[in-house]
Amino acid sequence: MARWEPGARDRLGEVAMRLFADQGFERTTVAEIAEAAGLTERTFFRHFADKREVLFAGQDDFLQLFLEPIDAAPDGTAPYELIGRSLVAAGAFFTDERRAFARARAVIIAREPALQERELAKLATLKTRLGEVFGERGVGEPAATLAAEVGVMVFHLSFQQWITKGEKRSMATIAHERLAALTQLVTE
Amino acid sequence: MARWEPGARDRLGEVAMRLFADQGFERTTVAEIAEAAGLTERTFFRHFADKREVLFAGQDDFLQLFLEPIDAAPDGTAPYELIGRSLVAAGAFFTDERRAFARARAVIIAREPALQERELAKLATLKTRLGEVFGERGVGEPAATLAAEVGVMVFHLSFQQWITKGEKRSMATIAHERLAALTQLVTE
Repeated sequence: MARWEPGARDRLGEVAMRLFADQGFERTTVAEIAEAAGLTERTFFRHFADKREVLFAGQDDFLQLFLEPIDAAPDGTAPYELIGRSLVAAGAFFTDERRAFARARAVIIAREPALQERELAKLATLKTRLGEVFGERGVGEPAATLAAEVGVMVFHLSFQQWITKGEKRSMATIAHERLAALTQLVTE
Repeated sequence: MARWEPGARDRLGEVAMRLFADQGFERTTVAEIAEAAGLTERTFFRHFADKREVLFAGQDDFLQLFLEPIDAAPDGTAPYELIGRSLVAAGAFFTDERRAFARARAVIIAREPALQERELAKLATLKTRLGEVFGERGVGEPAATLAAEVGVMVFHLSFQQWITKGEKRSMATIAHERLAALTQLVTE
């Protein structure tokens, strides 16, 4: 049995983020991360499948953030209302404590095309799942696909704003504002 | 002076598309395209900067398709109305003659991540330019960026439908339907 390393995951994550920021994601090895954290590579791999997982951990949890509020909504709730509930409820995950990490992460991802592709794939998966969920709730086409596109678009725009330097408002507030702007765009 | 090759550009384009479809884009060389078309590489390069341009010619024209109808609209036209005018007017470019090419092109692009990235970059440029144009017309933020996102999203969804097997309706008809679905999503 491996010795229990209190806080090892957090320490490895923090050290990895610092190294990715300083010397680039591609150039950073797991051996370097482990050494800088004063831990072994084996400990690293107990917590992360690979170095990319430092940036992309919790894909399933990420999807559930958006899908659970929809599952919880009464039958017959209009799709746009579902999008609003989903974004506002998911917003609670994006706490102020996460904002600094999200900003550092965005800088690292912006520098590496392969990471950008991975990030886009994450949003594409969310879009696909949302479309399926709307379909299962009886929303036809093209409305289900369109609603999924709208949901991911508003999330993405809100997230970009949330990590903008100087932005202090919560994710839920920003998402709400973006949805209101969309409603205004379409109705005026 | 080079000898005039009547129809050389069309012939090179057709041969290139066939080779890309049969053996993949990456594996196909300009030398092969020229040889299969019974022309020289030099002739190829008089018509295309590189083999990628067979798939991505006319980027500026593509942008103008969407921007000109907006430029032509009276001051004070609401952004959503501008999106509608832009998409319906641009739709005239996507003729039935182009549809077979667009379908073959989509299959080739779907197979190569680098081409997908190029295609996404094309849509990203359209999004940026639309956002700028809305801004120049006095639309504030976040409305201008949101309107640009909506325009590109509806175009992209409409285009995907337009190239779907069996689809016979015009691009303008499909774009109109997608916009109506968006209006319904947001208002009901």
